[in-house]
Amino acid sequence: MSRTTPQRSGRRPGDPQTRRAITAAARQAFARSGYDRATIRAIAAAAGVDPALVVHYFQSKEQLFRDVMQLPPGAAERIARLGEGPADSIGQRLAEVVVGIFENPDARDVFLGRIRGASAHPEAADLVKQTVERDMVTLAASLDVDRPELRAMLTGSIVIGTAFARYIVRVEPLASLDGPALVGLLAPQLQQSLTGQINQA
Amino acid sequence: MSRTTPQRSGRRPGDPQTRRAITAAARQAFARSGYDRATIRAIAAAAGVDPALVVHYFQSKEQLFRDVMQLPPGAAERIARLGEGPADSIGQRLAEVVVGIFENPDARDVFLGRIRGASAHPEAADLVKQTVERDMVTLAASLDVDRPELRAMLTGSIVIGTAFARYIVRVEPLASLDGPALVGLLAPQLQQSLTGQINQA
Repeated sequence: MSRTTPQRSGRRPGDPQTRRAITAAARQAFARSGYDRATIRAIAAAAGVDPALVVHYFQSKEQLFRDVMQLPPGAAERIARLGEGPADSIGQRLAEVVVGIFENPDARDVFLGRIRGASAHPEAADLVKQTVERDMVTLAASLDVDRPELRAMLTGSIVIGTAFARYIVRVEPLASLDGPALVGLLAPQLQQSLTGQINQA
Repeated sequence: MSRTTPQRSGRRPGDPQTRRAITAAARQAFARSGYDRATIRAIAAAAGVDPALVVHYFQSKEQLFRDVMQLPPGAAERIARLGEGPADSIGQRLAEVVVGIFENPDARDVFLGRIRGASAHPEAADLVKQTVERDMVTLAASLDVDRPELRAMLTGSIVIGTAFARYIVRVEPLASLDGPALVGLLAPQLQQSLTGQINQA
């Protein structure tokens, strides 16, 4: 079905680069095409391997998605430890970490792959849910604020919505904003979500 | 391919209810399954009509998506006119309109159908983009604030992210929050995005 002929580069199952090549191709495909359109066949073609090798390494598309959709080691820890600094600049620090993730191509692909995947696939939605619940709740719980769980979810919503509008819908002028300007836009917003007022219903 | 046998209810092309039945079925399918998984065959089955009738009325899946993914008449006008009230409660008024859309099942399906669609399909992403650019920019431009376009995009991002987290990822406690509590959570956040500080890069 693919119009691209697989360019086999002589990689064999034992080749340590094969798994990395598949991982990179899968991450890009999930981020750019979404879960349903990122087929094992297309990922194999992009990686220059036989589709059977993808199955050999990753068993299934679900498992492949789970394995390649991991944020860089340390990202969760960096977020969890942000609460150790002054509370009145927590929004600034979180904005810097978030924009750092957005500006790292691999990390951004993971982030976008999860968001696109969550729209079509309940397992991908679970992965987003677990990350928001773990990283954001840990951060909010480390602050001296009311309703930490609700603040965590609101903060996660703002980060997800910003990624969606900037990279998937590509609204302007948000899409072409440079990193420091995006930090300046997000910092007061995240300060509000983590430490500002929540109105009583 | 569908495991559901179409339940034909005797509707004919001239039946004025047919178009409404297809519209309702399509809106639900796009909102719940996403663009790629909402097939014309499945939509026809849910509407109780022959797939050929769907094509007769709507030409293509793209056109069907565009036609059924319209917010209720008046929604855009309500948002655009929010700026006429006091600036210090604009966040509260916008939060009430947004939550009103979320709590209306048809309007929510339109909103979610667009978001899910945007993840997979550039035309759906364009539809989200046009709405954010039209409704949010009109609102922000009516306020006496700096950087109105950037505020509009940030505000749209928060609304999209909240819908995504609440209805697609279903993070708790956000997913089970009642309407008034969600208004209370969103109001200060939207007040910040529309009228609060934006830091210089």
